[in-house]
Amino acid sequence: MKPSWLTISEHSDFSIHNLPFGVFSRTHALPVAGVAIGDYIIDLAQAYDKGVFPEYPLKENVFRKPFLNDFISLGRTFSGYVRIVLQQSLQDPDSLLKKLANSLIVRQSDVQLHIPLKVGNYTDFYSSQEHATNVGKLFRPDDPLFPNWKHMPVAYHGRASSIVVSGTAIQRPSGQISKDAAGAPTFAPTRSLDYELELAFVVGKDSQLGRPVPIDLAEEHIFGALLFNDWSARDIQRWEYQPLGPFTSKNFASSISPWIVTMEALEPFRTEPPVQSPMPLPYLIHSGRKGFDLHLSVAIKPSGDQEYRVSQTNSDHLYWNISQQVAHHTITGCNLNVGDLLATGTISGPEHHSAGCLLEATAGGKEPIYLSDKVVRRFLEDGDEVIIRGYGQKGDIRVGFGELKGIIRD
Amino acid sequence: MKPSWLTISEHSDFSIHNLPFGVFSRTHALPVAGVAIGDYIIDLAQAYDKGVFPEYPLKENVFRKPFLNDFISLGRTFSGYVRIVLQQSLQDPDSLLKKLANSLIVRQSDVQLHIPLKVGNYTDFYSSQEHATNVGKLFRPDDPLFPNWKHMPVAYHGRASSIVVSGTAIQRPSGQISKDAAGAPTFAPTRSLDYELELAFVVGKDSQLGRPVPIDLAEEHIFGALLFNDWSARDIQRWEYQPLGPFTSKNFASSISPWIVTMEALEPFRTEPPVQSPMPLPYLIHSGRKGFDLHLSVAIKPSGDQEYRVSQTNSDHLYWNISQQVAHHTITGCNLNVGDLLATGTISGPEHHSAGCLLEATAGGKEPIYLSDKVVRRFLEDGDEVIIRGYGQKGDIRVGFGELKGIIRD
Repeated sequence: MKPSWLTISEHSDFSIHNLPFGVFSRTHALPVAGVAIGDYIIDLAQAYDKGVFPEYPLKENVFRKPFLNDFISLGRTFSGYVRIVLQQSLQDPDSLLKKLANSLIVRQSDVQLHIPLKVGNYTDFYSSQEHATNVGKLFRPDDPLFPNWKHMPVAYHGRASSIVVSGTAIQRPSGQISKDAAGAPTFAPTRSLDYELELAFVVGKDSQLGRPVPIDLAEEHIFGALLFNDWSARDIQRWEYQPLGPFTSKNFASSISPWIVTMEALEPFRTEPPVQSPMPLPYLIHSGRKGFDLHLSVAIKPSGDQEYRVSQTNSDHLYWNISQQVAHHTITGCNLNVGDLLATGTISGPEHHSAGCLLEATAGGKEPIYLSDKVVRRFLEDGDEVIIRGYGQKGDIRVGFGELKGIIRD
Repeated sequence: MKPSWLTISEHSDFSIHNLPFGVFSRTHALPVAGVAIGDYIIDLAQAYDKGVFPEYPLKENVFRKPFLNDFISLGRTFSGYVRIVLQQSLQDPDSLLKKLANSLIVRQSDVQLHIPLKVGNYTDFYSSQEHATNVGKLFRPDDPLFPNWKHMPVAYHGRASSIVVSGTAIQRPSGQISKDAAGAPTFAPTRSLDYELELAFVVGKDSQLGRPVPIDLAEEHIFGALLFNDWSARDIQRWEYQPLGPFTSKNFASSISPWIVTMEALEPFRTEPPVQSPMPLPYLIHSGRKGFDLHLSVAIKPSGDQEYRVSQTNSDHLYWNISQQVAHHTITGCNLNVGDLLATGTISGPEHHSAGCLLEATAGGKEPIYLSDKVVRRFLEDGDEVIIRGYGQKGDIRVGFGELKGIIRD
């Protein structure tokens, strides 16, 4: 690909190969859709008005909206066209985009980023074998992995209303905690506040109620992906989760990164997912490279301190992939809608440094981790900022999600 | 209250004391808001246009919309005003409503009813002690009621996208089933399709993220209630539910009744909820009569046959009430939005005939129930129609939900 006339660092997550979609606002202006490129954002609402996308004269400017849902609903042919026009325009020194760059392109540091989606329904899978096993051992030492786990991508419905964008502070929740499994609970602030490193896929096409999505068509329903942090209060979770799963221990907040990286941009990072044994049922058997080789990391930045990396892993560890998740989610007839999120569940790897949450890294708080000689963590403390990053790299091609941040306040 | 000039049967659920809100459409017309009265519906969109509600000249006609969410968002003062105007107009032989009755009032049998809400998030509680105990015995004979159950209204997040209105046919789902708890699953149509008799409360006022709703303010966030059927595939549920709760066994469909009965209309049926022991934590201790004395029933109508009543119970059996549910749902900071549903969970009573689902009535299918000499059921069969009804009666005052129907198709 030719270099762009715009200055883009070679280490930027937002290379010309990426062009992820998000929502931003200029000072005193309403939120509109944008595409991230290097340190900049292309204002899609204005670009559309100025004729940058001449082949799609829509009835209304679908970019001049507070959420991307309506844009995404137009389908991947349209979003693919927008990406290709921008890729070409960024390489062409005579492009309309370059001529109008002063008004169409803004610095990310000059604007405010918003949550890019109106999330209808959010589902959290549990698709990392390492995570399910490690956590299972803590909650149920004798029976860590339930018999169903290798037969289906286990999941539960999460809370969509409390999904917030990167940068939103997270209030330490109070709730019911019981030291004794049989015992009398007390009401207190959680002492075991945790992050969960996840990816979430964004549904880009509705499916019909009563019609399971065949696995080989599953990816047609996915628009892209973003970083996801499923904040968890482990002490509350331990007491409340039986028999219907986590509730108040998770529904106080989940954070997402502001930029949705498209499936087209993730294409170079496809990989073979792990071999599955036993063989799953036919509706879960897929063809093609359905895994993604994406480097993921978590850092903690205590108040007034530097940041310390606490986890480094990769999404290629995931046992169940997005195609299997879509096929399973819809198998009894549940419908998916544009803007729904399907999160992977915590992504852990086989090594200790690849644990995707503190529950695993500290063995439930029993084995603290040392961020430095002086700084120790069992769980998150007030003032800690959690920073999740993720990117793919193949030769010169780098495509990333940027940062997903959240700071704990009491 | 004076009698109405409109003929209303004294046995009607939709008495002048009720006036529930819903959404309907006339032939070849768009859906609009309406109020049920006897066998009729008052067209609120036209009533507003004609000046029936003079004190609220809104910017736009909030009744001319496919969902009630925007109307509900205006608050209970506004909906209360609408109900009072209609109550008075229905009694006043000189009212504008009567003068324009030919255009403003339609027969229910002449129009189509629609789902009244855009449901954002749906939560299913588990608040009947009889149900939790009976079901617990089947899934976990030694440990039916978990230790947390008497300390909190246990709940899980359900799937909002697959909520459908009464009358929508329910497709028998296929999914993973395993006879052996440790075993190799097969893929098959469920053999244990069940209904769950529930009420669902409709959120009428947003709460803020990070701000728990104090229990004594909880009802301010509730607009009203409707009947809810949480269809369940028990064989799929049994295999998939650990450790994160039910997923594909429930998310294929839930049905709601078309009319939302307001909290004002439910007022005469308030009752003391059961005494709770042990005493819950302070955030769950309420004052006032938070229970509701509502008669609930389920009938099955096999294809080509008459209907048979299979359950008769009352919502006053519920151990946890809606105020406690709201307080618990928000205790860690989760926000509620207008249009969210909070379902009670299956409502069972102490007697065998008061079981709120077939799983309980047939002891998991082991003890079939006889609808007649010839008609036997363990679980639902294709062509069965399930009809849920509910109403309160106090002296001459009757307020009901109408019918919630769904027919099983293969």
